[in-house]
Amino acid sequence: MNKKACVPFFILLAGCATPPVATPPEKPRTSAEILEQSAPEDWRALDPENTLYLELPKGRVVVELAPAFAPNHAANIRTLAREKYFDGLAIIRVQDNYVTQWGDPEEDEKKAKPVGTAKATLPPEFTRDIAPDLPFTPLADGDVYAPEVGHSAGFPAARDPKSGKAWLTHCYGALGVARGNTPDSGGGTSLYVIISHSPRHLDRNITLAGRVVQGMELLSSLPRGTGPLGFYEKPAQRTPIRRVRVAADVPEKDRATLELLRTDTNTWNEFVDARRNRREPWFVEPAGAIELCNVPLPVREKSEKRVR
Amino acid sequence: MNKKACVPFFILLAGCATPPVATPPEKPRTSAEILEQSAPEDWRALDPENTLYLELPKGRVVVELAPAFAPNHAANIRTLAREKYFDGLAIIRVQDNYVTQWGDPEEDEKKAKPVGTAKATLPPEFTRDIAPDLPFTPLADGDVYAPEVGHSAGFPAARDPKSGKAWLTHCYGALGVARGNTPDSGGGTSLYVIISHSPRHLDRNITLAGRVVQGMELLSSLPRGTGPLGFYEKPAQRTPIRRVRVAADVPEKDRATLELLRTDTNTWNEFVDARRNRREPWFVEPAGAIELCNVPLPVREKSEKRVR
Repeated sequence: MNKKACVPFFILLAGCATPPVATPPEKPRTSAEILEQSAPEDWRALDPENTLYLELPKGRVVVELAPAFAPNHAANIRTLAREKYFDGLAIIRVQDNYVTQWGDPEEDEKKAKPVGTAKATLPPEFTRDIAPDLPFTPLADGDVYAPEVGHSAGFPAARDPKSGKAWLTHCYGALGVARGNTPDSGGGTSLYVIISHSPRHLDRNITLAGRVVQGMELLSSLPRGTGPLGFYEKPAQRTPIRRVRVAADVPEKDRATLELLRTDTNTWNEFVDARRNRREPWFVEPAGAIELCNVPLPVREKSEKRVR
Repeated sequence: MNKKACVPFFILLAGCATPPVATPPEKPRTSAEILEQSAPEDWRALDPENTLYLELPKGRVVVELAPAFAPNHAANIRTLAREKYFDGLAIIRVQDNYVTQWGDPEEDEKKAKPVGTAKATLPPEFTRDIAPDLPFTPLADGDVYAPEVGHSAGFPAARDPKSGKAWLTHCYGALGVARGNTPDSGGGTSLYVIISHSPRHLDRNITLAGRVVQGMELLSSLPRGTGPLGFYEKPAQRTPIRRVRVAADVPEKDRATLELLRTDTNTWNEFVDARRNRREPWFVEPAGAIELCNVPLPVREKSEKRVR
């Protein structure tokens, strides 16, 4: 905190004899200050090929796909979107403290909407191999569920050096591929988003294919379904899906212009530390630690430089 | 799993030479089976003096107060409810992935609703001393935020043997006492409920006074406020509070007849273990651990014996 290490700033300008060593800043920065003072290169744009727009009556949900973890599912979901599979389908399930799920409301499989050139089901992508080209910024705070946790190119993730595997984690906003009782029964025709305390016990049991980066409130504030598992009991309760598009297929003027904080920079590490030890005057007892799914993943409008 | 330890059941009846030692059951029970087969004494009723009904236009939210952790705040909230302080106030804030908060929408302090014989503010009850009469069932799985976590008479809680302190934790459904920048600026006139991934960094920074045991969906599915911190910008967006009552003051026929699973029994321990190692056939990779806020706190209708 070093509050007495130098005299005030205006005297410093007049010639304070500060020793020529790096001194820590007088006051550690808050996470908001770190973001405000970040450099343009601390941020990254979304890749339009890996970005989906889920258009609902009340607005747009922006999803970032994670082909590094689920290449086949990301490709299949992209194909489904490009062939307009999701258009006209609906949000069919909202279970409190759990998930919002969309897909084909038709229960009779014979009448199900055709998947076109996409696959109806795929082999699971629950985990992948750890590899040198898979970025990973470890979080030093430990975890109840995994030997190592951290962030991989903006996605909260976990690793097990013993098994050599890495996987995405079920944090708030995670996008998953609904499946039946067999691991290979999902393919992306029905997708879910975590709207709750993170159900990390699902990790490595189901394929995560991305995460929501904007518009979570459009999924989290929906009325809960009253049927088993939160399925809606009446068709009128469902929220219709206007369309799902790959951002690359949308005219540039209609694309979201979001930037996401990179998770492989010093700014990121400082940001996480400012969340681990909150410096806002409101806090009296900084936690001194942070749990993976409590690390916010900052998103801002490119034009505004304002964090949403 | 011991599937070959004995011949099938019908032969057993005819005289199978099972050795007279306790054998593990053929198949570990799922959490649903454990609840279905639980004994009446595994459950407890709510104490009507420690139960609040928050009556909203769409239904009732049932809150259990935690006088063991926040005796002064619980008493003050009870007084506020008994003197009808909350009646006609509103839900003024819903911040996505964070909290729903209610209180007096009036921003001009001079025009604020009088608190009657209650206190407007109280000294904080962020922690309390560990004591022999404070129940605590430890959770063996560790925690990122606290040296020890577990459950205290139905509430998720943490302890630090070094400081001798115990505290309630910010899990989904926790009821907290909103405050300003100084620790003693809250008193219960404005209350919040966690509707998100658990913001455990708030632990020991703000008084938790209870938790929601039924009706969470009435708080979690509300439209998010678009003002700073999720406050509603227009009065019409707020959800009015019809009334808040202490259950003891409500005619018995109008009371909720809920039972909560006790957290100090063998059934509880078995239940937690069945959530730690999920036995439903859907799971391919049981987590082998469970994080405090992922432990569900089962509630059922007394009449139905059906878990909600």
